[in-house]
Amino acid sequence: MKRYKLIIEYDGSNYAGWQKQKGLPSIQETLESRIQELIKEPVQLFASGRTDAGVHAKGQVAHFESEKEVDPYKLTGALNFFLKSTNIAILEIAEAEERFHARFSAKMRYYEYLILNRNAPSILFPGKFWHIKEKLDYNLMQEGANYLLGKHDFTSFRAKDCQADSPIRTLNLVLFEKEGDIIKFTIAARSFLHHMVRNIIGTLRLVGNKKISPEQIKLILEAKDRSKAGQTAPPQGLYFLKTDY
Amino acid sequence: MKRYKLIIEYDGSNYAGWQKQKGLPSIQETLESRIQELIKEPVQLFASGRTDAGVHAKGQVAHFESEKEVDPYKLTGALNFFLKSTNIAILEIAEAEERFHARFSAKMRYYEYLILNRNAPSILFPGKFWHIKEKLDYNLMQEGANYLLGKHDFTSFRAKDCQADSPIRTLNLVLFEKEGDIIKFTIAARSFLHHMVRNIIGTLRLVGNKKISPEQIKLILEAKDRSKAGQTAPPQGLYFLKTDY
Repeated sequence: MKRYKLIIEYDGSNYAGWQKQKGLPSIQETLESRIQELIKEPVQLFASGRTDAGVHAKGQVAHFESEKEVDPYKLTGALNFFLKSTNIAILEIAEAEERFHARFSAKMRYYEYLILNRNAPSILFPGKFWHIKEKLDYNLMQEGANYLLGKHDFTSFRAKDCQADSPIRTLNLVLFEKEGDIIKFTIAARSFLHHMVRNIIGTLRLVGNKKISPEQIKLILEAKDRSKAGQTAPPQGLYFLKTDY
Repeated sequence: MKRYKLIIEYDGSNYAGWQKQKGLPSIQETLESRIQELIKEPVQLFASGRTDAGVHAKGQVAHFESEKEVDPYKLTGALNFFLKSTNIAILEIAEAEERFHARFSAKMRYYEYLILNRNAPSILFPGKFWHIKEKLDYNLMQEGANYLLGKHDFTSFRAKDCQADSPIRTLNLVLFEKEGDIIKFTIAARSFLHHMVRNIIGTLRLVGNKKISPEQIKLILEAKDRSKAGQTAPPQGLYFLKTDY
């Protein structure tokens, strides 16, 4: 058996998420069916991060196994041709080691969250930001985010339906940057809880508009109580960026 | 008479350009008609840069005069509501001095050109790049571009139908940056010749893929011969960025 690693970009707007779901369009099923058509063999894809409905990816990683030896470069071209009518593109396919697993071998995952902070909605990139009209102070948001760095119990930022065994996670990077009217947030950890990034952003927004102080993020974290944190930020601002192995 | 200055974002994909043209959709006409509906008075817009068909703007500047005193903030909101079905948004309206002219008062204009340099087309931002598959060396492109800095006769980079009196222009900034697979080019001058930015990019692309050396840009410039330079780069990678007054 040969194992192949894919780097994938997608616009999640019209998908119910990465994962296969009966009767709903998913990235996984769309990709699996096109690969199967090409290599004439049933395939199963495993992804680094199973993104939710409406979440985008600039560098999702997935792998599949095949009996056949395929030319990764040719498969990339053919697959992108087959994917033309979808909102998915393959950026790269490479042969991987037999023990490589897109999900379980991951050492670090990176997400990006984009906020458009101005009055007018985005004309050039619709559906690609959380559009917030009230002025946000991204330096305050950075201060607040810094309290989340390191190993913590993230119960306050965890979705009710989260299936993870433990609420303990280790955040290795939280970075706010501003370019024009866009506030860009980059966050990295080995793994995340369900809705964790969106719940963190929804809470830091309250720091940005001065509803709460940066220091309150520490108290919200320590409360281990989801009801103390802010709303779940909308999916269209979230991008799965990359994975380190 | 009061004078109002507008900052405008638009997706140029479905427009024949800024300027009004009989029977074709233009940014100018779309905007003028919406403003007229709102303030019940004929208006004429003057833009900083009359972008071509398919060219986008992140910060076009325009002005109009009105007999009426309008509240700039309220007009922005109302106008954006009226513009909902279009690909145009008003980022800001401000009252301007009586002698302010969006075109003639401009001290410096900035354009951005975006190249997506990878095999797969853009899924997340379709129609917003020049998609070039062959690997480009953006450091070589920078070297080539540096020969264009300063005051020169830009005949080699001027469209045949250019109506400017003189081919002499002064380039104040040429900057190549790379973020992931995107090569971003920023260029600034008090004014440009017709197609000048796109002809420069179409020529620097030949430097990027090593068809010609950076030093040849100097020879092409000195030749004052349009046929010595490269193709006109496509409009969808070009953005009117901002104007200094």
